[in-house]
Amino acid sequence: MPRVSQDHLDARRRQILDGARSCFARHGYEGATVRRLEETTGLSRGAIFHHFRDKESLFLALAEDDAQRMASVVAEQGLVQVMRDLLAERAAAQHDTENAEHPADWLGTRLEVSRRLRTDAEFRARWAQRSEQLTIATRNRLLRQREAGKLRDDVDVDVLTSFLELVMEGLISHLAKGLPADDLGPVLDLVEESVRRHRRDHGSADGAGSP
Amino acid sequence: MPRVSQDHLDARRRQILDGARSCFARHGYEGATVRRLEETTGLSRGAIFHHFRDKESLFLALAEDDAQRMASVVAEQGLVQVMRDLLAERAAAQHDTENAEHPADWLGTRLEVSRRLRTDAEFRARWAQRSEQLTIATRNRLLRQREAGKLRDDVDVDVLTSFLELVMEGLISHLAKGLPADDLGPVLDLVEESVRRHRRDHGSADGAGSP
Repeated sequence: MPRVSQDHLDARRRQILDGARSCFARHGYEGATVRRLEETTGLSRGAIFHHFRDKESLFLALAEDDAQRMASVVAEQGLVQVMRDLLAERAAAQHDTENAEHPADWLGTRLEVSRRLRTDAEFRARWAQRSEQLTIATRNRLLRQREAGKLRDDVDVDVLTSFLELVMEGLISHLAKGLPADDLGPVLDLVEESVRRHRRDHGSADGAGSP
Repeated sequence: MPRVSQDHLDARRRQILDGARSCFARHGYEGATVRRLEETTGLSRGAIFHHFRDKESLFLALAEDDAQRMASVVAEQGLVQVMRDLLAERAAAQHDTENAEHPADWLGTRLEVSRRLRTDAEFRARWAQRSEQLTIATRNRLLRQREAGKLRDDVDVDVLTSFLELVMEGLISHLAKGLPADDLGPVLDLVEESVRRHRRDHGSADGAGSP
Protein backbone atom coordinates (compact mmCIF):
# COMPACT_ATOMS: atom_id res chain seq x y z
CA MET A 1 0.00 0.00 0.00
CA PRO A 2 1.27 3.51 -0.74
CA ARG A 3 1.93 5.74 2.26
CA VAL A 4 -0.63 8.46 2.70
CA SER A 5 0.62 11.86 1.64
CA GLN A 6 0.98 14.86 3.94
CA ASP A 7 -1.70 16.63 1.89
CA HIS A 8 -4.04 13.78 2.55
CA LEU A 9 -3.29 13.87 6.28
CA ASP A 10 -3.85 17.62 6.40
CA ALA A 11 -7.14 17.33 4.53
CA ARG A 12 -8.29 14.57 6.85
CA ARG A 13 -7.34 16.63 9.89
CA ARG A 14 -9.27 19.57 8.49
CA GLN A 15 -12.29 17.35 7.83
CA ILE A 16 -12.25 16.18 11.46
CA LEU A 17 -11.89 19.70 12.84
CA ASP A 18 -14.75 21.05 10.71
CA GLY A 19 -17.11 18.22 11.65
CA ALA A 20 -16.13 18.36 15.32
CA ARG A 21 -16.64 22.14 15.44
CA SER A 22 -20.22 21.81 14.36
CA CYS A 23 -20.75 18.85 16.70
CA PHE A 24 -19.43 20.71 19.78
CA ALA A 25 -21.45 23.79 18.83
CA ARG A 26 -24.70 21.85 18.61
CA HIS A 27 -24.30 19.44 21.50
CA GLY A 28 -21.75 21.01 23.85
CA TYR A 29 -18.60 19.24 24.98
CA GLU A 30 -20.29 16.53 27.03
CA GLY A 31 -23.00 15.95 24.43
CA ALA A 32 -20.49 15.52 21.60
CA THR A 33 -20.32 11.75 21.91
CA VAL A 34 -17.97 9.63 19.82
CA ARG A 35 -20.97 8.42 17.83
CA ARG A 36 -22.02 12.00 17.05
CA LEU A 37 -18.45 12.94 16.16
CA GLU A 38 -18.46 10.03 13.70
CA GLU A 39 -21.67 11.32 12.16
CA THR A 40 -20.61 14.96 11.79
CA THR A 41 -17.09 14.18 10.55
CA GLY A 42 -18.19 11.29 8.34
CA LEU A 43 -15.25 9.26 9.70
CA SER A 44 -14.85 6.29 12.01
CA ARG A 45 -13.66 6.67 15.60
CA GLY A 46 -10.48 4.90 14.58
CA ALA A 47 -9.74 7.55 11.97
CA ILE A 48 -10.65 10.42 14.32
CA PHE A 49 -8.46 9.25 17.18
CA HIS A 50 -5.63 8.43 14.84
CA HIS A 51 -5.32 12.20 14.38
CA PHE A 52 -6.23 13.35 17.89
CA ARG A 53 -5.29 11.56 21.09
CA ASP A 54 -8.67 12.03 22.74
CA LYS A 55 -11.75 14.24 22.73
CA GLU A 56 -10.05 16.87 24.87
CA SER A 57 -7.09 17.12 22.48
CA LEU A 58 -9.52 17.46 19.59
CA PHE A 59 -11.38 20.22 21.37
CA LEU A 60 -8.18 22.08 22.25
CA ALA A 61 -6.94 21.84 18.66
CA LEU A 62 -10.25 23.30 17.53
CA ALA A 63 -10.16 26.18 20.00
CA GLU A 64 -6.56 26.89 19.06
CA ASP A 65 -7.44 26.83 15.37
CA ASP A 66 -10.25 29.36 15.95
CA ALA A 67 -7.99 31.62 18.02
CA GLN A 68 -5.32 31.58 15.30
CA ARG A 69 -7.74 32.51 12.54
CA MET A 70 -9.11 35.33 14.64
CA ALA A 71 -5.65 36.64 15.52
CA SER A 72 -4.76 36.93 11.85
CA VAL A 73 -7.84 39.05 11.14
CA VAL A 74 -7.01 41.21 14.15
CA ALA A 75 -3.48 41.80 12.87
CA GLU A 76 -4.83 42.99 9.51
CA GLN A 77 -7.98 44.84 10.48
CA GLY A 78 -8.26 45.12 14.24
CA LEU A 79 -10.54 43.57 16.82
CA VAL A 80 -13.47 45.91 16.19
CA GLN A 81 -13.51 44.67 12.59
CA VAL A 82 -13.64 41.09 13.84
CA MET A 83 -16.70 42.10 15.84
CA ARG A 84 -18.30 43.78 12.83
CA ASP A 85 -17.69 40.62 10.80
CA LEU A 86 -19.42 38.62 13.50
CA LEU A 87 -22.48 40.83 13.29
CA ALA A 88 -22.53 40.52 9.51
CA GLU A 89 -22.26 36.73 9.74
CA ARG A 90 -25.12 36.63 12.17
CA ALA A 91 -27.28 38.80 9.89
CA ALA A 92 -26.45 36.53 6.94
CA ALA A 93 -27.21 33.39 8.97
CA GLN A 94 -30.63 34.75 9.88
CA HIS A 95 -31.55 34.90 6.22
CA ASP A 96 -30.58 31.26 5.97
CA THR A 97 -33.39 29.62 7.92
CA GLU A 98 -31.57 26.32 8.20
CA ASN A 99 -28.79 27.98 10.16
CA ALA A 100 -30.89 30.47 12.09
CA GLU A 101 -30.92 28.26 15.17
CA HIS A 102 -27.17 27.81 15.05
CA PRO A 103 -25.00 30.91 15.29
CA ALA A 104 -21.45 30.67 13.94
CA ASP A 105 -20.04 27.33 14.99
CA TRP A 106 -16.98 28.72 16.71
CA LEU A 107 -19.19 30.64 19.13
CA GLY A 108 -20.05 27.28 20.59
CA THR A 109 -16.36 26.50 20.98
CA ARG A 110 -15.72 29.78 22.74
CA LEU A 111 -18.62 29.31 25.11
CA GLU A 112 -17.59 25.76 25.85
CA VAL A 113 -14.05 26.98 26.56
CA SER A 114 -15.57 29.47 29.01
CA ARG A 115 -17.55 26.80 30.76
CA ARG A 116 -14.66 24.38 31.07
CA LEU A 117 -12.25 27.07 32.24
CA ARG A 118 -14.64 27.63 35.09
CA THR A 119 -15.21 24.03 36.09
CA ASP A 120 -12.06 22.16 35.10
CA ALA A 121 -8.69 23.09 36.65
CA GLU A 122 -6.69 20.76 34.41
CA PHE A 123 -8.25 22.23 31.29
CA ARG A 124 -7.48 25.70 32.67
CA ALA A 125 -3.80 24.80 32.86
CA ARG A 126 -3.69 23.41 29.32
CA TRP A 127 -5.62 26.35 27.93
CA ALA A 128 -3.50 29.03 29.62
CA GLN A 129 -0.55 28.17 27.42
CA ARG A 130 -2.58 28.71 24.28
CA SER A 131 -4.86 31.63 24.98
CA GLU A 132 -2.60 34.65 24.64
CA GLN A 133 -2.49 34.86 20.86
CA LEU A 134 -5.47 37.13 20.51
CA THR A 135 -4.28 39.49 23.24
CA ILE A 136 -0.87 39.78 21.61
CA ALA A 137 -2.36 40.39 18.16
CA THR A 138 -4.72 43.04 19.53
CA ARG A 139 -2.01 44.80 21.50
CA ASN A 140 0.41 44.83 18.56
CA ARG A 141 -2.24 46.25 16.29
CA LEU A 142 -2.99 49.03 18.80
CA LEU A 143 0.71 49.85 19.14
CA ARG A 144 0.95 50.27 15.37
CA GLN A 145 -2.17 52.45 15.41
CA ARG A 146 -0.66 54.59 18.12
CA GLU A 147 2.54 55.02 16.11
CA ALA A 148 0.37 56.10 13.19
CA GLY A 149 -1.25 58.71 15.41
CA LYS A 150 -4.70 57.11 15.19
CA LEU A 151 -4.99 56.01 18.79
CA ARG A 152 -5.77 58.11 21.84
CA ASP A 153 -2.59 58.60 23.84
CA ASP A 154 -4.02 59.45 27.25
CA VAL A 155 -4.86 55.83 28.05
CA ASP A 156 -2.36 52.98 28.31
CA VAL A 157 -2.36 50.51 25.41
CA ASP A 158 -2.85 47.64 27.85
CA VAL A 159 -6.04 49.26 29.13
CA LEU A 160 -7.32 49.77 25.57
CA THR A 161 -6.46 46.15 24.76
CA SER A 162 -8.36 44.88 27.80
CA PHE A 163 -11.28 47.13 26.94
CA LEU A 164 -11.59 45.76 23.41
CA GLU A 165 -11.23 42.19 24.64
CA LEU A 166 -13.92 42.72 27.24
CA VAL A 167 -16.34 44.02 24.60
CA MET A 168 -15.40 41.12 22.32
CA GLU A 169 -16.09 38.67 25.13
CA GLY A 170 -19.45 40.33 25.70
CA LEU A 171 -20.32 40.17 22.01
CA ILE A 172 -19.45 36.48 21.82
CA SER A 173 -21.60 35.76 24.82
CA HIS A 174 -24.45 37.85 23.39
CA LEU A 175 -24.36 36.12 20.01
CA ALA A 176 -23.93 32.69 21.53
CA LYS A 177 -27.15 33.23 23.47
CA GLY A 178 -28.94 33.91 20.21
CA LEU A 179 -29.97 37.38 21.39
CA PRO A 180 -30.94 40.03 18.81
CA ALA A 181 -27.89 41.81 17.42
CA ASP A 182 -29.37 44.09 14.76
CA ASP A 183 -28.80 47.16 16.91
CA LEU A 184 -25.16 46.51 17.79
CA GLY A 185 -23.52 48.30 14.85
CA PRO A 186 -23.76 51.72 16.52
CA VAL A 187 -22.47 50.17 19.74
CA LEU A 188 -19.31 49.08 17.92
CA ASP A 189 -19.01 52.59 16.48
CA LEU A 190 -19.00 53.88 20.05
CA VAL A 191 -16.39 51.29 21.06
CA GLU A 192 -14.17 52.27 18.15
CA GLU A 193 -14.54 55.95 18.90
CA SER A 194 -13.60 55.30 22.53
CA VAL A 195 -10.13 54.03 21.62
CA ARG A 196 -9.39 56.52 18.85
CA ARG A 197 -7.40 59.69 19.26
CA HIS A 198 -9.60 62.25 20.98
CA ARG A 199 -11.05 64.77 18.65
CA ARG A 200 -9.96 67.60 20.91
CA ASP A 201 -6.34 66.51 20.30
CA HIS A 202 -6.77 67.82 16.78
CA GLY A 203 -8.01 71.15 18.05
CA SER A 204 -11.25 70.48 16.20
CA ALA A 205 -14.10 72.50 17.65
CA ASP A 206 -16.93 70.47 16.16
CA GLY A 207 -15.65 67.09 17.24
CA ALA A 208 -16.05 65.60 13.78
CA GLY A 209 -13.50 64.06 11.47
CA SER A 210 -11.67 61.53 13.58
CA PRO A 211 -9.16 59.62 11.46
CA MET B 1 -49.79 20.81 64.30
CA PRO B 2 -49.53 24.56 63.81
CA ARG B 3 -49.47 25.81 60.25
CA VAL B 4 -46.08 26.99 59.14
CA SER B 5 -45.81 30.75 59.04
CA GLN B 6 -45.15 32.79 55.92
CA ASP B 7 -41.86 33.90 57.47
CA HIS B 8 -40.86 30.31 57.85
CA LEU B 9 -41.78 29.54 54.24
CA ASP B 10 -39.82 32.56 53.00
CA ALA B 11 -36.78 31.58 55.07
CA ARG B 12 -36.96 28.03 53.76
CA ARG B 13 -37.24 29.27 50.19
CA ARG B 14 -34.22 31.50 50.76
CA GLN B 15 -32.26 28.60 52.23
CA ILE B 16 -32.99 26.49 49.14
CA LEU B 17 -32.05 29.28 46.73
CA ASP B 18 -28.77 29.99 48.51
CA GLY B 19 -27.76 26.33 48.62
CA ALA B 20 -28.84 25.73 45.04
CA ARG B 21 -26.92 28.78 43.82
CA SER B 22 -23.68 27.44 45.15
CA CYS B 23 -24.49 23.94 43.85
CA PHE B 24 -25.19 25.15 40.28
CA ALA B 25 -22.08 27.34 40.38
CA ARG B 26 -19.82 24.46 41.36
CA HIS B 27 -21.31 21.63 39.33
CA GLY B 28 -23.20 23.27 36.46
CA TYR B 29 -26.85 22.62 35.72
CA GLU B 30 -26.46 18.99 34.70
CA GLY B 31 -24.03 18.22 37.52
CA ALA B 32 -26.33 19.67 40.18
CA THR B 33 -27.96 16.34 41.03
CA VAL B 34 -30.79 16.06 43.51
CA ARG B 35 -28.38 14.44 45.95
CA ARG B 36 -25.98 17.38 45.68
CA LEU B 37 -28.85 19.85 46.03
CA GLU B 38 -29.80 18.06 49.24
CA GLU B 39 -26.23 18.41 50.51
CA THR B 40 -25.80 22.10 49.69
CA THR B 41 -29.25 23.15 50.90
CA GLY B 42 -29.22 20.88 53.94
CA LEU B 43 -32.79 19.85 53.09
CA SER B 44 -34.47 16.71 51.78
CA ARG B 45 -35.63 16.42 48.18
CA GLY B 46 -39.18 16.42 49.50
CA ALA B 47 -38.66 19.82 51.12
CA ILE B 48 -36.87 21.25 48.07
CA PHE B 49 -39.52 20.19 45.56
CA HIS B 50 -42.31 21.30 47.86
CA HIS B 51 -41.09 24.83 47.14
CA PHE B 52 -40.03 24.42 43.50
CA ARG B 53 -41.79 22.24 40.95
CA ASP B 54 -38.60 20.85 39.43
CA LYS B 55 -34.93 21.60 38.96
CA GLU B 56 -35.61 23.90 36.03
CA SER B 57 -38.09 25.97 38.05
CA LEU B 58 -35.54 26.21 40.85
CA PHE B 59 -32.87 27.36 38.43
CA LEU B 60 -35.15 29.95 36.84
CA ALA B 61 -36.16 31.30 40.26
CA LEU B 62 -32.48 31.63 41.08
CA ALA B 63 -31.61 33.44 37.88
CA GLU B 64 -34.60 35.75 38.33
CA ASP B 65 -33.57 36.44 41.92
CA ASP B 66 -30.06 37.39 40.78
CA ALA B 67 -31.41 39.62 38.01
CA GLN B 68 -33.71 41.42 40.44
CA ARG B 69 -30.96 42.11 42.94
CA MET B 70 -28.74 43.42 40.18
CA ALA B 71 -31.49 45.63 38.76
CA SER B 72 -31.98 47.31 42.11
CA VAL B 73 -28.28 48.19 42.35
CA VAL B 74 -28.40 49.50 38.79
CA ALA B 75 -31.34 51.77 39.63
CA GLU B 76 -29.44 53.29 42.55
CA GLN B 77 -25.88 53.40 41.28
CA GLY B 78 -25.73 52.41 37.64
CA LEU B 79 -24.40 49.42 35.75
CA VAL B 80 -20.76 50.51 35.87
CA GLN B 81 -20.98 50.48 39.66
CA VAL B 82 -22.32 46.92 39.53
CA MET B 83 -19.23 46.04 37.51
CA ARG B 84 -16.93 47.77 39.99
CA ASP B 85 -18.59 45.85 42.81
CA LEU B 86 -17.93 42.64 40.93
CA LEU B 87 -14.24 43.45 40.68
CA ALA B 88 -14.09 44.29 44.37
CA GLU B 89 -15.80 41.00 45.25
CA ARG B 90 -13.33 39.10 43.14
CA ALA B 91 -10.39 40.84 44.80
CA ALA B 92 -11.82 40.04 48.23
CA ALA B 93 -12.44 36.41 47.28
CA GLN B 94 -8.84 36.03 46.19
CA HIS B 95 -7.68 36.87 49.67
CA ASP B 96 -9.93 34.13 50.95
CA THR B 97 -8.11 31.04 49.72
CA GLU B 98 -11.05 28.77 50.33
CA ASN B 99 -13.12 30.72 47.82
CA ALA B 100 -10.35 31.52 45.35
CA GLU B 101 -11.40 28.65 43.09
CA HIS B 102 -15.03 29.77 43.15
CA PRO B 103 -15.83 33.24 41.84
CA ALA B 104 -19.10 34.82 42.98
CA ASP B 105 -21.74 32.13 42.90
CA TRP B 106 -24.14 34.01 40.65
CA LEU B 107 -21.52 34.09 37.91
CA GLY B 108 -22.11 30.40 37.58
CA THR B 109 -25.82 31.02 37.22
CA ARG B 110 -25.26 33.62 34.53
CA LEU B 111 -22.93 31.37 32.58
CA GLU B 112 -25.29 28.45 32.89
CA VAL B 113 -28.12 30.67 31.62
CA SER B 114 -25.90 31.53 28.64
CA ARG B 115 -25.22 27.90 27.89
CA ARG B 116 -28.83 26.81 28.16
CA LEU B 117 -30.08 29.74 26.08
CA ARG B 118 -27.83 28.45 23.34
CA THR B 119 -28.76 24.79 23.50
CA ASP B 120 -32.33 24.68 24.82
CA ALA B 121 -35.15 26.33 22.85
CA GLU B 122 -37.76 25.73 25.55
CA PHE B 123 -35.59 27.35 28.17
CA ARG B 124 -35.03 30.27 25.79
CA ALA B 125 -38.77 30.84 25.63
CA ARG B 126 -39.19 30.74 29.42
CA TRP B 127 -36.21 32.98 29.98
CA ALA B 128 -37.21 35.63 27.44
CA GLN B 129 -40.14 36.66 29.60
CA ARG B 130 -37.88 37.30 32.56
CA SER B 131 -34.69 38.76 31.17
CA GLU B 132 -35.59 42.35 30.48
CA GLN B 133 -35.41 43.71 34.00
CA LEU B 134 -31.76 44.64 33.84
CA THR B 135 -32.13 46.37 30.48
CA ILE B 136 -35.05 48.42 31.73
CA ALA B 137 -33.24 49.39 34.92
CA THR B 138 -30.12 50.39 32.99
CA ARG B 139 -32.05 52.40 30.42
CA ASN B 140 -34.09 54.22 33.07
CA ARG B 141 -30.96 55.09 34.98
CA LEU B 142 -29.35 56.50 31.82
CA LEU B 143 -32.47 58.55 31.03
CA ARG B 144 -32.30 60.12 34.49
CA GLN B 145 -28.58 60.80 34.00
CA ARG B 146 -29.31 62.46 30.70
CA GLU B 147 -31.97 64.67 32.28
CA ALA B 148 -29.38 65.63 34.89
CA GLY B 149 -27.00 66.63 32.11
CA LYS B 150 -24.44 63.98 33.01
CA LEU B 151 -24.81 61.84 29.91
CA ARG B 152 -23.46 62.48 26.43
CA ASP B 153 -26.32 63.55 24.19
CA ASP B 154 -24.87 62.75 20.76
CA VAL B 155 -25.56 59.01 21.10
CA ASP B 156 -28.97 57.41 21.55
CA VAL B 157 -29.77 56.11 25.04
CA ASP B 158 -30.57 52.69 23.57
CA VAL B 159 -27.08 52.50 22.08
CA LEU B 160 -25.51 53.49 25.40
CA THR B 161 -27.65 50.90 27.20
CA SER B 162 -26.57 48.16 24.78
CA PHE B 163 -22.95 49.25 25.12
CA LEU B 164 -22.99 48.98 28.91
CA GLU B 165 -24.78 45.64 28.75
CA LEU B 166 -22.24 44.28 26.29
CA VAL B 167 -19.36 45.27 28.57
CA MET B 168 -21.20 43.77 31.54
CA GLU B 169 -21.68 40.53 29.64
CA GLY B 170 -17.98 40.53 28.79
CA LEU B 171 -17.02 41.14 32.41
CA ILE B 172 -19.23 38.31 33.62
CA SER B 173 -17.71 35.97 31.11
CA HIS B 174 -14.20 37.12 32.02
CA LEU B 175 -14.73 36.64 35.76
CA ALA B 176 -16.54 33.36 35.29
CA LYS B 177 -13.49 32.01 33.48
CA GLY B 178 -11.38 32.87 36.49
CA LEU B 179 -9.16 35.16 34.41
CA PRO B 180 -7.10 37.86 36.16
CA ALA B 181 -9.13 41.01 36.77
CA ASP B 182 -6.74 43.21 38.74
CA ASP B 183 -6.20 45.47 35.74
CA LEU B 184 -9.85 46.05 34.87
CA GLY B 185 -10.51 49.10 37.06
CA PRO B 186 -9.05 51.52 34.46
CA VAL B 187 -11.05 49.71 31.78
CA LEU B 188 -14.25 50.51 33.65
CA ASP B 189 -13.10 54.12 33.97
CA LEU B 190 -12.83 54.19 30.18
CA VAL B 191 -16.29 52.64 29.82
CA GLU B 192 -17.78 55.21 32.16
CA GLU B 193 -16.06 58.07 30.41
CA SER B 194 -17.39 56.80 27.08
CA VAL B 195 -21.02 57.29 28.11
CA ARG B 196 -20.58 60.56 29.99
CA ARG B 197 -21.18 63.97 28.58
CA HIS B 198 -18.18 64.88 26.43
CA ARG B 199 -15.76 67.15 28.14
CA ARG B 200 -15.67 69.45 25.14
CA ASP B 201 -19.38 70.10 25.74
CA HIS B 202 -18.33 72.05 28.80
CA GLY B 203 -15.90 74.12 26.79
CA SER B 204 -13.11 72.77 28.96
CA ALA B 205 -9.77 72.99 27.21
CA ASP B 206 -7.93 70.48 29.32
CA GLY B 207 -10.53 67.76 29.15
CA ALA B 208 -10.61 67.28 32.92
CA GLY B 209 -13.47 67.62 35.35
CA SER B 210 -16.22 65.48 33.91
CA PRO B 211 -19.19 65.37 36.27
